[in-house]
Amino acid sequence: MDKIRIGIVGYGNLGRGVQYASSQNPDTEIVAVFTRRDPASVKTVLPVKVEKYEDMKNYVGKIDVMILCGGSATDLPKQSAEVVSLFNIVDSFDTHAKIPEHFSAIDKAAKASAHVGAMSVGWDPGLFSLARIYFGASLADGNSYTFWGRGVSQGHSDAIRRIEGVEDARQYTVPVESALERVRKGENPELTTREKHTRECYVVAKEGADKARIEKEIKEMPNYFADYDTTVHFISKEELLRDHAGIPHGGLVLRSGKSAADNKFLMEFSLKLDSNPEFTSSVLVAYARAVYRLHKEGKTGAVTVFDIAPKYLSVLSEEEQRKQLL
Amino acid sequence: MDKIRIGIVGYGNLGRGVQYASSQNPDTEIVAVFTRRDPASVKTVLPVKVEKYEDMKNYVGKIDVMILCGGSATDLPKQSAEVVSLFNIVDSFDTHAKIPEHFSAIDKAAKASAHVGAMSVGWDPGLFSLARIYFGASLADGNSYTFWGRGVSQGHSDAIRRIEGVEDARQYTVPVESALERVRKGENPELTTREKHTRECYVVAKEGADKARIEKEIKEMPNYFADYDTTVHFISKEELLRDHAGIPHGGLVLRSGKSAADNKFLMEFSLKLDSNPEFTSSVLVAYARAVYRLHKEGKTGAVTVFDIAPKYLSVLSEEEQRKQLL
Repeated sequence: MDKIRIGIVGYGNLGRGVQYASSQNPDTEIVAVFTRRDPASVKTVLPVKVEKYEDMKNYVGKIDVMILCGGSATDLPKQSAEVVSLFNIVDSFDTHAKIPEHFSAIDKAAKASAHVGAMSVGWDPGLFSLARIYFGASLADGNSYTFWGRGVSQGHSDAIRRIEGVEDARQYTVPVESALERVRKGENPELTTREKHTRECYVVAKEGADKARIEKEIKEMPNYFADYDTTVHFISKEELLRDHAGIPHGGLVLRSGKSAADNKFLMEFSLKLDSNPEFTSSVLVAYARAVYRLHKEGKTGAVTVFDIAPKYLSVLSEEEQRKQLL
Repeated sequence: MDKIRIGIVGYGNLGRGVQYASSQNPDTEIVAVFTRRDPASVKTVLPVKVEKYEDMKNYVGKIDVMILCGGSATDLPKQSAEVVSLFNIVDSFDTHAKIPEHFSAIDKAAKASAHVGAMSVGWDPGLFSLARIYFGASLADGNSYTFWGRGVSQGHSDAIRRIEGVEDARQYTVPVESALERVRKGENPELTTREKHTRECYVVAKEGADKARIEKEIKEMPNYFADYDTTVHFISKEELLRDHAGIPHGGLVLRSGKSAADNKFLMEFSLKLDSNPEFTSSVLVAYARAVYRLHKEGKTGAVTVFDIAPKYLSVLSEEEQRKQLL
């Protein structure tokens, strides 16, 4: 079998995850990792060549799809359009407000270079977006809900770490069970931010720091915590490392509605993930397969999960899909 | 807005459901119902023209998509290929073993007449098939499970009704909670038929019938009940009408697996449906929209849910989809 030749751009948690995920998908192989750091300083979880970001141009014709593993804040807005000029790409862009402009930038560069650029792939955006579109289409008269967690929010953990006197911190986003139950009962509630999620913070304070002040600063932090019921637990560094080392996440998409004859329906999709980046990477690799196939068919331009028929994702042939999965 | 003009072929529970669902989707309208019965004898739930099956040829050019609401045993194997020679179609064919030949028959007739024929649409096959393909692709190293129920199985209810001395009956398929829990815990169990579902039967016996014999005949019936833990409750006709008048159904698709770094993942999709046919119909109408759009783009031939990108299902424009749902 001709393997799908994948390159990884950026080597953090997501890049490591793509390497792991590719090892579980025998129709793919990782050709090289590209980094802005000194390649010699990058330790990979499985053996692979590490190259400078600038040298990816030497891999044109040797890599079918680049998976972009940088962040949405500063990396992807620059890299996605840049890399799609040379290769097909998949990225996990998740800055919601900037999706239209990111789409346009990739679309333009991808069409000019006859590549396919799949953006906002992962679980949210990604599989949760799929649940939202399929659920909405299947049940016209209803309400959709997305809950996140229980899981670690990197952004909120970082925000706590920036507070004076904090040595380390981990923040969990937790769906409110009673709100979930109201949705499941078909009440179609209007839920405020505070009613849907709570925030649990585990904080290691520096020696002699004022814990009361730290707790107050966390709970009153605008955007991040002020709109939520937030609990703060001070723990030791040892406890943090022992009990909060993982990066679990997950969540639920629900849609509740009814027929014109007033019969009720509930649709629910949920994920429980021990590792957020490793699952996201696993989805990225499936979409690399899709992008590879779409490009072979002559497709060009930007695409999202909405534009890609499910058949392109599966390693099975179309006949096998109909036989085994339909 | 130009409405998508839909015809309904066959007017039972599913046909009624399509009428209801179309009323919730303002971009669609039902032009006519086609029946093999005497049109004058068909009472529709909403006002609509009822025509003879043979007269559908007069509607060429006046109907964009025919939704076939007949049964998989005898109606669809004949009708799907026949109707797709004149119109685009959507059917809910669910005889699993015969999917390849049904696909070939539709594909041949649809290509010859330049139509699109979407088959096996609904929730299983349909949305559950989508869960199986997306879950499998997203998580290469794992096991998938499908559970059905709690819900009424028409086929099993009919089988009980054919037993001597039975006046009426309703059979519920029920997932075994402990089996579900083992899957959710990530045990990846091998589950036998008996371990996954139980069967609950509510039976109205005829005056003076031998209930012990009826119960024994049910429990020992091959294929239908012999392989399951089956409970039989004898109830009055009044109780059956009062407590078991609905046609609820639902179920779950789960996939449990792990990353190459041994982190565990659980994906779960579930449906709880007060009316099985009304929900199926609602999905059929969404796929009629997709078929209409695919045909406009020049697509021809047989398709399943695996071949259709999610964007075709949503009433929203692609820009709105990315903005509101991605």
